[in-house]
Amino acid sequence: MPDISRVVLAYSGGLDTSVIAKWLMVERGLEVVTFTADLGQGEEIEPARAKARAMGIPAEHIFIEDLREEFARDFVFPMMRANARYEGDYLLGTSIARPLISKRLVEIARETGADAIAHGATGKGNDQVRFELSAYALDPDITVIAPWREWNLTSRTALVDWAEAHQIQVPKDKRGDSPFSTDANLLHTSSEGKVLEDPWEETPDYVYSRTVDPQDAPDTPETIEIGFECGDGVSLNAERLSPAELLAALNDLGRRHGIGRLDLVENRFVGMKSRGMYETPGGEIYARAHRGIEQITLDRGAAHLKDELMPRYAELIYNGFWFSPEREMLQAAIDLSQQSVNGTVRLKLYKGNVWVVGRKSPNTLYSQAHVTFEDDAGAYDQKDAAGFIKLNALRLRLLARRDRG
Amino acid sequence: MPDISRVVLAYSGGLDTSVIAKWLMVERGLEVVTFTADLGQGEEIEPARAKARAMGIPAEHIFIEDLREEFARDFVFPMMRANARYEGDYLLGTSIARPLISKRLVEIARETGADAIAHGATGKGNDQVRFELSAYALDPDITVIAPWREWNLTSRTALVDWAEAHQIQVPKDKRGDSPFSTDANLLHTSSEGKVLEDPWEETPDYVYSRTVDPQDAPDTPETIEIGFECGDGVSLNAERLSPAELLAALNDLGRRHGIGRLDLVENRFVGMKSRGMYETPGGEIYARAHRGIEQITLDRGAAHLKDELMPRYAELIYNGFWFSPEREMLQAAIDLSQQSVNGTVRLKLYKGNVWVVGRKSPNTLYSQAHVTFEDDAGAYDQKDAAGFIKLNALRLRLLARRDRG
Amino acid sequence: MPDISRVVLAYSGGLDTSVIAKWLMVERGLEVVTFTADLGQGEEIEPARAKARAMGIPAEHIFIEDLREEFARDFVFPMMRANARYEGDYLLGTSIARPLISKRLVEIARETGADAIAHGATGKGNDQVRFELSAYALDPDITVIAPWREWNLTSRTALVDWAEAHQIQVPKDKRGDSPFSTDANLLHTSSEGKVLEDPWEETPDYVYSRTVDPQDAPDTPETIEIGFECGDGVSLNAERLSPAELLAALNDLGRRHGIGRLDLVENRFVGMKSRGMYETPGGEIYARAHRGIEQITLDRGAAHLKDELMPRYAELIYNGFWFSPEREMLQAAIDLSQQSVNGTVRLKLYKGNVWVVGRKSPNTLYSQAHVTFEDDAGAYDQKDAAGFIKLNALRLRLLARRDRG
Amino acid sequence: MPDISRVVLAYSGGLDTSVIAKWLMVERGLEVVTFTADLGQGEEIEPARAKARAMGIPAEHIFIEDLREEFARDFVFPMMRANARYEGDYLLGTSIARPLISKRLVEIARETGADAIAHGATGKGNDQVRFELSAYALDPDITVIAPWREWNLTSRTALVDWAEAHQIQVPKDKRGDSPFSTDANLLHTSSEGKVLEDPWEETPDYVYSRTVDPQDAPDTPETIEIGFECGDGVSLNAERLSPAELLAALNDLGRRHGIGRLDLVENRFVGMKSRGMYETPGGEIYARAHRGIEQITLDRGAAHLKDELMPRYAELIYNGFWFSPEREMLQAAIDLSQQSVNGTVRLKLYKGNVWVVGRKSPNTLYSQAHVTFEDDAGAYDQKDAAGFIKLNALRLRLLARRDRG
Repeated sequence: MPDISRVVLAYSGGLDTSVIAKWLMVERGLEVVTFTADLGQGEEIEPARAKARAMGIPAEHIFIEDLREEFARDFVFPMMRANARYEGDYLLGTSIARPLISKRLVEIARETGADAIAHGATGKGNDQVRFELSAYALDPDITVIAPWREWNLTSRTALVDWAEAHQIQVPKDKRGDSPFSTDANLLHTSSEGKVLEDPWEETPDYVYSRTVDPQDAPDTPETIEIGFECGDGVSLNAERLSPAELLAALNDLGRRHGIGRLDLVENRFVGMKSRGMYETPGGEIYARAHRGIEQITLDRGAAHLKDELMPRYAELIYNGFWFSPEREMLQAAIDLSQQSVNGTVRLKLYKGNVWVVGRKSPNTLYSQAHVTFEDDAGAYDQKDAAGFIKLNALRLRLLARRDRG
Repeated sequence: MPDISRVVLAYSGGLDTSVIAKWLMVERGLEVVTFTADLGQGEEIEPARAKARAMGIPAEHIFIEDLREEFARDFVFPMMRANARYEGDYLLGTSIARPLISKRLVEIARETGADAIAHGATGKGNDQVRFELSAYALDPDITVIAPWREWNLTSRTALVDWAEAHQIQVPKDKRGDSPFSTDANLLHTSSEGKVLEDPWEETPDYVYSRTVDPQDAPDTPETIEIGFECGDGVSLNAERLSPAELLAALNDLGRRHGIGRLDLVENRFVGMKSRGMYETPGGEIYARAHRGIEQITLDRGAAHLKDELMPRYAELIYNGFWFSPEREMLQAAIDLSQQSVNGTVRLKLYKGNVWVVGRKSPNTLYSQAHVTFEDDAGAYDQKDAAGFIKLNALRLRLLARRDRG
Repeated sequence: MPDISRVVLAYSGGLDTSVIAKWLMVERGLEVVTFTADLGQGEEIEPARAKARAMGIPAEHIFIEDLREEFARDFVFPMMRANARYEGDYLLGTSIARPLISKRLVEIARETGADAIAHGATGKGNDQVRFELSAYALDPDITVIAPWREWNLTSRTALVDWAEAHQIQVPKDKRGDSPFSTDANLLHTSSEGKVLEDPWEETPDYVYSRTVDPQDAPDTPETIEIGFECGDGVSLNAERLSPAELLAALNDLGRRHGIGRLDLVENRFVGMKSRGMYETPGGEIYARAHRGIEQITLDRGAAHLKDELMPRYAELIYNGFWFSPEREMLQAAIDLSQQSVNGTVRLKLYKGNVWVVGRKSPNTLYSQAHVTFEDDAGAYDQKDAAGFIKLNALRLRLLARRDRG
Repeated sequence: MPDISRVVLAYSGGLDTSVIAKWLMVERGLEVVTFTADLGQGEEIEPARAKARAMGIPAEHIFIEDLREEFARDFVFPMMRANARYEGDYLLGTSIARPLISKRLVEIARETGADAIAHGATGKGNDQVRFELSAYALDPDITVIAPWREWNLTSRTALVDWAEAHQIQVPKDKRGDSPFSTDANLLHTSSEGKVLEDPWEETPDYVYSRTVDPQDAPDTPETIEIGFECGDGVSLNAERLSPAELLAALNDLGRRHGIGRLDLVENRFVGMKSRGMYETPGGEIYARAHRGIEQITLDRGAAHLKDELMPRYAELIYNGFWFSPEREMLQAAIDLSQQSVNGTVRLKLYKGNVWVVGRKSPNTLYSQAHVTFEDDAGAYDQKDAAGFIKLNALRLRLLARRDRG
């Protein structure tokens, strides 16, 4: 461990990261700088200031920031351009937030002369990897402290006892273990652990926090229109919105209609399977809308290449390699494909469903003249198909002739 | 055109293929052998016999066969093992049926001494490609006749006039153009053309034939369990079913709950975009169940490789290359991965939704001991994560050091 | 066939394209514009002017251009950034030249008000596809005339007779069939057909035109150094050279040392296999040098992604899809990776061999401190490897435990 | 560290692994079982017996085995079917040997009731990963001891001193550091470290041990023929040979002609770049021959799929994932493709070069009738190419029309 003196901590203001802050001071003898970000998790972040102050952290070492627009614009939207879903389903809501937090941690370390960063992720999960790979990629000489991998406060009791012994206030509902653990931001809320650990057991109702039960959603569908420019959403029902505003508005819609619940057993980068419950109301709507607009604006060659690259791209984000040359290379390819992904998608929301029911674009590649069953006025010569098939078949025929033997 | 004398026609018994049968006799001077298959399209196939007889085709040249089990077992299920979806969504219901039809056409040609086959697909679509690539791959010397690419009966009026001039009965509802065109089998019903040609316009209600409107579906969810062995479905709610029986039972469930509707603009192999409406009620349920059971039984390396290969695999089937070395190579890889894909998936069906809500397996790879937030009794050493991250980060740090300037 | 009046012909000045020019005038009644390019094929292009004039083509419709720099800079070098080799070996010398010719054909058509282009490629080869896909991608309304697919001058005698009947001078050595056919440009010379048609027979000595027999090459190796900037070669032995100059200088070196001969049976896009003999003296040296400089300047993630994308990229170029969204997407990814591919590679040339024997770079990622067997002063903690391996092994162990039975 | 009592050591009989054996006894208090394998490294393995005995290891705990045939047949040949080259060049000579050694270590552990294995690989390299991943995949409960990551004998002096203090004989030439480190087996000899650590410096002559300097190789080429069945080499110059015999014979040929030298800077799995010198004389000949026979026997679809999968496959072997589901899936796909890879390849060996100059096969897909410039008697209709191109161009034309703006 290098000789360090000041550390920037990803600080939520909650019990766990308060204990970490104190532990870094007491056990490690470090000056602690706190960084608390609003990524749209739906909790006030200002209270973190008083809590940090109460632990003796000077005002100039308390950073509290609203990153919602940066998060939506520079992380969520670029990822959505790729139609990224990990293992076929997961919209990467937690994975995509970590690089941004690390980026700010490293930047604040530079500003404050800190030589280390610290985070509250455990040693079993993906988040430690995502935080740390991002940090190392941005500052190769930074030191990372992950108290959960190091200390012995591994039971709830031990943690609470330590907190109280060190004058950290323990809210009543935090004394015992919570029945599951969550992470939330503008894109999603994830829940895992405890009551979710048996993948055969259905997720209890109380786990959901972000969406109404589809059974309780409105009995009539709601139709909306999302506008896209260069592959990014820019409007809802013709009202122009910023990336974070659009995502927030779609979250409201998704919540109401019970959209975006996902019960998944996934493969962690550290090697084991875990079961998670994700709620991605706005993200699910957005993702489907994006595919909808691509359907008429993206060339087949571009679309199929994107589909083939997507699993790799999603894996990179899931595994924490957002700041890597290969993710950036894939992004360059993907972004180039989005130049004409402009237009409007009409979607229907209903009791957990989101259906694309219409799409139009000034840059459409859909040619009614070519596809029509009616007279196409010579747009397409059906006889061309004969030659097309013949030459595509040639190698198969040569093969069949050989193997007939 | 080689010198041919007898042709096997994919014959539905409907007006169009009846005209083709007659046209092949009259205009081409060929003996016609008809082949009518039950692939689960939901129409009687026996009536085709009398129609063929009425055109003068001898009994021994009329082939009427129930291929539902072969279709489900040897085509649909192997494809489902791959989690194949074309362009992210389409479950390939039409694409996967064509190779089987071609296989039987070629086999019947051999049995009856025919030297050609014929089909009723147009020159603008994918089906001509699928029929013909399959046929050529199975018999490199077969001749394929595609009347729609050759004749001049391109308007409905011309077709109807020709039919009547040649003593083919024209049902009243077939006199005019139908407002859309369909294809159906055990896996799906597809609709395209005419009223669907504007991708901005919502699909009219009357297009749907295979599913109830989700709004009219039951107000309470239904929970089912599907059993899997070696990656294939084998039971529904603990009742053992054959592949075709399972798919049929899932179709009933999907229909009732309004599951599997898909409005898609897709890229045809022949180069243009088209808009289709697919209803795949049972297939949608099955596909999600299969992913569900894979979640706990498939190793990450296998799962991610499958995800990366899938778009290519789906494209091959869509484009008509079922009988190709590369599809068979991918199938060999996929099938190998399915050996332990055994177990049961619990799903909830509700107004268009199908959710995996539980999965269990005698071959589960999910290890509660490893993932638990509780004490794991040494199953996993969190300190290993530090080294894991350090070495994964090494190249990124060397890069950052170089590029820091 | 649309109604056209003026056509731009890719004109070499040789007998075949002279016949085509005349045929377009006589049989098609078209005005012919000729385009003759110096792509480094090693033949004078000026004589084409007089020949075109002799056929009555007005001076302002005769285009003669030196495209060597554009060819090297905008086509060969970008392709080399990808380390592209088709089917493991072929450096795509012919494939990469076609898009540039088509680009100029289409541009000249615009300048001269022509509505069609014509080329002298046959209906069995890849070049027709490359010419035409490029042309259509650049001008969707252009008409393409490919006389070899249309006329009946399919034997040498018929062609010569037609030429003489139309006052085209036939050089003595062109009266009979040549024993093989060639294509040449700055990157390579390819030979195919006739004496090369049996893939078991060794290529006769007289086929080679671009390289000395390695047995006749100098008995002592020659060492050279090539400098790279952003992935492109910029100097030879410290002398700064333009792209075309560098390629020409490497061709001289390769010729002398018998480098770059390749006897290949390849798969054509049109479906059959063909056997070709390629000589790519400078290209082979350049390709190996590029890999050499990448070895120390490219991150592993970038390098492996490039290697995985390369076969697809090479296939696109081979098949004629240079001007396609997917090639451009891949190029964007590849180009991004080349920003720090700077430095110098030392190579040894000897009797057909080209070996990388040294590489250095101001942007090297090679860290002697990390790799050394000596004391590394803490650059690398060997204990990290234990955790790295443990977590990489975790999924394999869970799998082994399950499958142990 | 679990409680273990007996360990199987990969024992070469050399100084380093002798020290490890003793160290495991003395410092760890373990019973040591030695395993010494002949993988074709060209050194006697019998002497290891006496050395083990001299350290007090009982005869029944000394395993000495000739694994050359198993190595060639079950590891090298399957890998060669894939045309595997890591980072474009490296034939994976070291990587492919490790899984076999681990397999035997684990099997011997079972036979002898040992609960651990040990190896002599350092903490900086790939071999530790390969040994351990293989071992864990075959026995999830095995303990692995890697003394180089644990002890403090990190300088040559310390090691030698410890050896002498423990009655291990130190050969004179092992007292000092060797100028580079090597690994050898039937497939290759690799050298790295010390004098090779500067990638700009040319490899000194004395590093080569497996091949003559191409300059000293015979002045006349030698032509050979290799026979293949199902993708595996079976004969040399018509003489039937076992896999190991064939590889040995090709090694002799390659040595004489100076074939298979490779100077490479490669990316290690543990994160840094290293520079190695490989000599793979027989492997280089074999690899080119295999590609040669595939050229005429493999369908394009199969060949291109193989080319796209190869980098991933090679990376898996390099990284130590031979015993992984994904490698086995890829192998299943590759093996399926080799069923008709039969025939004979003629090659010319000359001063470092190996050229394929002819290939023939009873299963050839090369059709002279299709490719010929002569009259092809109707095998191929050139007019088909027009339709083929038109439909391949359709999407590009629609795109160009849209973007013309």
